[in-house]
Amino acid sequence: MTRPLFGCIEAGGTKFVAAIVAGPDDIRETVRFDTTTPAETIGATLDWLRAAQGRHGALSAIGIASFGPLELDRAAPDWGYITATTKKGWSNCDFAGLIGRSLSLPVGFDTDVNGAALAESRWGAGRGKPVCVYVTIGTGIGGGAIIDGKPLQGLSHPEMGHIRLPRHADDTGFSGVCPFHGDCLEGLASGPAIMARWGASLSDLPQGHVAHDIIAWYLAHMVVTLQSIMEPACVILGGGVTGTPGLIDRIRTQADILGGGYFRGRAKDIIIPPGLGDKAGLLGGLALAQDILPHAV
Amino acid sequence: MTRPLFGCIEAGGTKFVAAIVAGPDDIRETVRFDTTTPAETIGATLDWLRAAQGRHGALSAIGIASFGPLELDRAAPDWGYITATTKKGWSNCDFAGLIGRSLSLPVGFDTDVNGAALAESRWGAGRGKPVCVYVTIGTGIGGGAIIDGKPLQGLSHPEMGHIRLPRHADDTGFSGVCPFHGDCLEGLASGPAIMARWGASLSDLPQGHVAHDIIAWYLAHMVVTLQSIMEPACVILGGGVTGTPGLIDRIRTQADILGGGYFRGRAKDIIIPPGLGDKAGLLGGLALAQDILPHAV
Repeated sequence: MTRPLFGCIEAGGTKFVAAIVAGPDDIRETVRFDTTTPAETIGATLDWLRAAQGRHGALSAIGIASFGPLELDRAAPDWGYITATTKKGWSNCDFAGLIGRSLSLPVGFDTDVNGAALAESRWGAGRGKPVCVYVTIGTGIGGGAIIDGKPLQGLSHPEMGHIRLPRHADDTGFSGVCPFHGDCLEGLASGPAIMARWGASLSDLPQGHVAHDIIAWYLAHMVVTLQSIMEPACVILGGGVTGTPGLIDRIRTQADILGGGYFRGRAKDIIIPPGLGDKAGLLGGLALAQDILPHAV
Repeated sequence: MTRPLFGCIEAGGTKFVAAIVAGPDDIRETVRFDTTTPAETIGATLDWLRAAQGRHGALSAIGIASFGPLELDRAAPDWGYITATTKKGWSNCDFAGLIGRSLSLPVGFDTDVNGAALAESRWGAGRGKPVCVYVTIGTGIGGGAIIDGKPLQGLSHPEMGHIRLPRHADDTGFSGVCPFHGDCLEGLASGPAIMARWGASLSDLPQGHVAHDIIAWYLAHMVVTLQSIMEPACVILGGGVTGTPGLIDRIRTQADILGGGYFRGRAKDIIIPPGLGDKAGLLGGLALAQDILPHAV
């Protein structure tokens, strides 16, 4: 029997990646489009997916891991929409619905971070872990949690970037860059927050610069807050800021100090880099496509 | 057919409540014991449960909602133990195992707050809500979350009391009472933390006292942090401190300000008092007993 083929879309605020995928180690073809307008970018993606079926064979389902916020309630009339986003032109965009109707295929749809969390928990660093959290620290800070193999979903998808933290004693006179909350985690530790304070990215600042300790301290607070709330077996840290050399070790050191020996998880075991590297988002699309069509896997 | 009978135990640090229960509205008999030593208190509970079967009929299962920390992994050799607790004499106590062996009955076992969360989500204020969080604010601060009808469980059960928060501008010169973390949430907003700063319980302090705003502000931070991480459909607040007149309204006001309109849940809808009043813990035992013996319900 032929392995079912899936169309996967990793939809980011700056670029879309689409691919024809048969399995986590079997990506048949990939394409990239700049994220411009919904009509142009979704249109190009649809054209490519249609043409790709000619080259690779019929697709069984589509999986989309998208920037948000999104409406994920399948009972809601606007299921599949990108809702009120800061990305110009994309608010209130019927994304998953349009893709599904245009291709007459079932569509799995979730946030980029929920997709990445799902892929990491299925094939990457979170395999076999009871509660798997994935957080990306880059232009923004966003996260998702996989519980019993499913993305955690309350009234909406989690954000995780907007948790509240104490201020580092050496981080004074900065009000934070979050337009909603000022000095929430994203307002203090995202790439733009680092740039706003120190005029450079974290990896461009010398290793002795105080920014490394301050950012590690905030991210360690995030980890112990997550431990207090759900004792995750892993907190996978992805994104551009996390790639800074030495940062994960600094976060581990601070998290062990802040935890005070109280939590079950040890920082060195639970704070880990992604296992799927930069393929986590696209394979998130695969996981979402598989889950919408479980009998085909 | 006769309704199955369950033995339910709400095990607290100061008292045990045991009961014979057929359903949430059908509590046949209740008893209380002071929490002294494990031998004495568990022994008295066992004697009472044995004798109660003579009066009411055979029990089908036992449900225990206990103070912790607990070992909840059924594959662990010390499943059912109270582990390293600050309650003298109770560390490393084989609680659920002893009860089960002595009565030859299956035992459902979880934390008091997970039990209360489960009962509230099944019969109380959290009925029909996709993610239901229950937090008790009293001698300590502890919480549990029910997701898809089951208590959230990572490497261990959640605590929720030990999340980190910014400091209120008017709450200076106080290092917090948490022996592990100093000024975590429990260290700042639990009953003992209130007593340590102001020499009285919150409900004994006049309504104009600054303590009301400070404690509400901390608890509102907890709510928005929970919203950021899991967008719960409800955060049910129980416990002695929460009973202070006006406190829930103050928390709602602060949570809406802190949320900045970012989250799906509105404070007035999600921050709610328990629906089961002081029976949430005992009915937690019922829910846990039902879940260990699903065919009997």
